[in-house]
Amino acid sequence: MRTAFYISDGTAITSEVFGHATLSLFPTEFNHRTIPFVETPEKAEEIKRVINQTAAKSGERPLVFFTFVNHKLSEIIKSSDAVCYDFLSVFSEQIKHELKLEPVPKVHRTHSMHEKSYDYRIDAVNYALANDDGANVKDYEKADIILVGVSRSGKTPTSLYLALQYGIKAANYPMTEDDLESGSYPRCLLPYKHKLFGLTISPERLSAIREERMANSRYASIRQCRMEVMEVERLFKKNRTPYLNSTCFSVEEISAKIISEAGLERRKY
Amino acid sequence: MRTAFYISDGTAITSEVFGHATLSLFPTEFNHRTIPFVETPEKAEEIKRVINQTAAKSGERPLVFFTFVNHKLSEIIKSSDAVCYDFLSVFSEQIKHELKLEPVPKVHRTHSMHEKSYDYRIDAVNYALANDDGANVKDYEKADIILVGVSRSGKTPTSLYLALQYGIKAANYPMTEDDLESGSYPRCLLPYKHKLFGLTISPERLSAIREERMANSRYASIRQCRMEVMEVERLFKKNRTPYLNSTCFSVEEISAKIISEAGLERRKY
Repeated sequence: MRTAFYISDGTAITSEVFGHATLSLFPTEFNHRTIPFVETPEKAEEIKRVINQTAAKSGERPLVFFTFVNHKLSEIIKSSDAVCYDFLSVFSEQIKHELKLEPVPKVHRTHSMHEKSYDYRIDAVNYALANDDGANVKDYEKADIILVGVSRSGKTPTSLYLALQYGIKAANYPMTEDDLESGSYPRCLLPYKHKLFGLTISPERLSAIREERMANSRYASIRQCRMEVMEVERLFKKNRTPYLNSTCFSVEEISAKIISEAGLERRKY
Repeated sequence: MRTAFYISDGTAITSEVFGHATLSLFPTEFNHRTIPFVETPEKAEEIKRVINQTAAKSGERPLVFFTFVNHKLSEIIKSSDAVCYDFLSVFSEQIKHELKLEPVPKVHRTHSMHEKSYDYRIDAVNYALANDDGANVKDYEKADIILVGVSRSGKTPTSLYLALQYGIKAANYPMTEDDLESGSYPRCLLPYKHKLFGLTISPERLSAIREERMANSRYASIRQCRMEVMEVERLFKKNRTPYLNSTCFSVEEISAKIISEAGLERRKY
């Protein structure tokens, strides 16, 4: 199996995302290795030896996706027995001509706490935790969005993802049987109806998820799940609450759809 | 200000990460716009109009970073009045020759719930929440890692990031004054000393963070923070617990360092 290395003087997250997206186009498996914080020539030489050993052992040149600010480090890695993809350089050359501006490389430009948005993101994580699962219904004034849905429809991971990745303050409120029976939103949500976003899910998937939590319970039964999902969707429609069905989507996809449909302002790019 | 578009038939996360990393090399500001889920020619034509309007209004061609599986959609976007960077294609051409394999484009390859690691990640988020802040000390058997440190040293956001991004089950335990006074780890942690990873922080930064939570408290006082940090670091050293100082690092950086230093197995690439 071919080895793919993701190497950087920072977190190597950019190399990973780019390398992974590119390699996922090919119908084969790779052995992935990330090596972050390669910040000195000594460390780069050490990594070069690791790459060369991998090449010698497998008989195939590893693929190396790297980003370095310090040119000297790039040169050391490029001199290894690997196929190197210096993907930022290729495009920065092109963009340089378009912008008529020279690039000014700096370490830790991305994924560092010096990004303007960093404090927002940490605040938003604290907010999401304090306002998870209806734990606190008195702080919705500060919410950018309030996710509503039945228990286990994906609200919590989505709230956390919106906070961590984008600095969006997302509260979430679980619609209980009492709420659903009453056929309307609970009083604590009424002043914030414009901030609500619904998540729904297929009853079958909901039942499977709940079954893992509480096997053979009424809570997990398909009959109960069907009823709750039907009622919550009716509520969303009646109130014109935008909503989406999370059954086939990842938190990344759900978050991207919510940001786009609700027109939320992101605090991080 | 020049506008940068990130466009895709999926979440557009790959385009964003790549575009943002490239543009951050240049000492200028951009107006960022992400447009995910462009899945039909009609939608692509609509986006082309938006791009062209932006170009006309600002008098500068926008920069467009895109990934599409469907070639027809790429062509529509490429025919807009913008500078387009089809960054995946450039490298997939090169990799094709190295691997002697044709790429097989599929939509939603990345950032979707069909990735093998997806269920692990959601499980890990549930685990991190249930085992946050010492809330549950009976489930450490299942932990991949247990973060320890004084209150507000960055344990919770790091646990959540490790879970959401990498599917790593991270518990976290706050070292209380009682624990610190006793000079040893609490009994619940003793069987899991090999899983511990310490986070420490500068007393000044800790005091500032605590001050926001509880102004003018003993808890936030610099004297108290100095004492706690000194005691916790002494404890880490005495027990040979690996640790890092989180003061100047983002959750991304802390997570990358922990994974690398603790040799954790990632469940997602």
